[in-house]
Amino acid sequence: MTIHSILICGGTHGNELSGVYAVRQWKQNSQKLQQLAPSANISFELVNKASVDARTRFIDEDLNRQFDLRKLQAKRAEDGSSHEATLAQSLNEQYGPKPHGNIDLIVDIHNTTSAMGPTLIVLENDHFNQQLARYVKTHMPDAVILVEDHIPYEQHPYFCTLGKRSVMVEVGPQAQGALRADIYLQTLRMTELIVAFIETVNTNTDEQLPPVEAYRLIAEIPYPTDSLGQRSAMNHPNIDGNDFTEVRAGMPCFMDFEGKDILWEGDTVYPHFVGEAAYDKQNLAFATAQKCEF
Amino acid sequence: MTIHSILICGGTHGNELSGVYAVRQWKQNSQKLQQLAPSANISFELVNKASVDARTRFIDEDLNRQFDLRKLQAKRAEDGSSHEATLAQSLNEQYGPKPHGNIDLIVDIHNTTSAMGPTLIVLENDHFNQQLARYVKTHMPDAVILVEDHIPYEQHPYFCTLGKRSVMVEVGPQAQGALRADIYLQTLRMTELIVAFIETVNTNTDEQLPPVEAYRLIAEIPYPTDSLGQRSAMNHPNIDGNDFTEVRAGMPCFMDFEGKDILWEGDTVYPHFVGEAAYDKQNLAFATAQKCEF
Repeated sequence: MTIHSILICGGTHGNELSGVYAVRQWKQNSQKLQQLAPSANISFELVNKASVDARTRFIDEDLNRQFDLRKLQAKRAEDGSSHEATLAQSLNEQYGPKPHGNIDLIVDIHNTTSAMGPTLIVLENDHFNQQLARYVKTHMPDAVILVEDHIPYEQHPYFCTLGKRSVMVEVGPQAQGALRADIYLQTLRMTELIVAFIETVNTNTDEQLPPVEAYRLIAEIPYPTDSLGQRSAMNHPNIDGNDFTEVRAGMPCFMDFEGKDILWEGDTVYPHFVGEAAYDKQNLAFATAQKCEF
Repeated sequence: MTIHSILICGGTHGNELSGVYAVRQWKQNSQKLQQLAPSANISFELVNKASVDARTRFIDEDLNRQFDLRKLQAKRAEDGSSHEATLAQSLNEQYGPKPHGNIDLIVDIHNTTSAMGPTLIVLENDHFNQQLARYVKTHMPDAVILVEDHIPYEQHPYFCTLGKRSVMVEVGPQAQGALRADIYLQTLRMTELIVAFIETVNTNTDEQLPPVEAYRLIAEIPYPTDSLGQRSAMNHPNIDGNDFTEVRAGMPCFMDFEGKDILWEGDTVYPHFVGEAAYDKQNLAFATAQKCEF
């Protein structure tokens, strides 16, 4: 297998600034990154420039939910009504059409307001993704591997899935519209490791690495609501700021507005995207994962 | 002196959720708060409801920069062109007109994305504000007292200055549009202490408290920019997430996008509002303060 082309992206969400500034920096000087993988052609893209200029997640709707294959194909016949629906069609023409992408690997850089640390999100459970995750985790022990393989690759709504293969670099905590140096440096480091791994693949120097600790997405959990549908609790301080902490039945997971604990009743889970600001409007408290080897 | 009326406000910025949820909670049940100050009439206000509904800082422009006395008076003759200019006039009619406010004390609750902890912002250096700050700091040692008395009270552009007296409760770090239980609880605690202090004033049971450690605002510091006016550095990890840390000449305060440190050249300062997302658009890196007794 050879990865001829790598597209590294920021600004899919315009207020997630690590990728925006990293891509701007690489566009000015990609030498250091290109030297890590002389065998591949690396290019860069600020994906949703209008939202970057507006410093918002999106203009009309979330671009990173437009790329489910059926949604893309259904929309093809329509006039794109929103900025992001139109942009999705344009990106699909440029890099796709999905599932026949012309880029071998898309790396899409995101931030979360949650304390998820430097997280590599992989979307398929195959040899390539396993070896990539293992390489990153081995060289960057504080990296978190998050596996979202609950649906087939083509059904994922993410922009990066226009690529033949793709991963997301998801680093937090960082407030929307803010830029933190430590988060930026973690973003560079993880992206450099991905590129360095590709060089080992292309030059057949990749070693078979043993499985590493990872987390596999289970479900999204809403905030509790009262009889009027109003939110009646917050994430508990035990989990807020402590993404990927184990929560067992009987442990506090929410706190109501008078300070009373609400206990977790399900199987043991590892909450993440805890209190992510972008999901607040949909009343999502956190996502759950199970710990696994990958 | 008697404080007959206290107005406690949230939602002056619609995406700063501690105050939004605290005010909603108090509107449902103010008994606990009212019991702390039977001598005062406490009311509550969600100030910019449209921005709360939109989950944005503002609709057209920053409401909390509309209340400089001269700006209010100059605008009086005009049609309010923006949502916030119109709202400011309406609030000025309801609670003012400034400087003849009909509320004895306005407490306006804010969040910052910066790691400022539970901060009490006072706007005047007088006996009342000193005693209030000392009471809060004495009963809540992790509270930070920030004094912004660099301009006369009437020139402050803040909504709360419609009150005869006013303070801001400014708690962080919390991302815009997110709600953290620990930050919410600190917000309740500081507000309860302010209310409890008022009861000591009204019942002449306030003790003369000794001065406490505080910080006095000096200036706002922009990010470095290159010859094209583009930002060329981030806040240094030493200060980002470490608001009110001492920075002396020769210590790193910025980091460029290749990871090189940029050193502070001025007098010793205490940066705060470090990397505040709401000030990013104006290219503001942080505000400086000097340490003082208050």
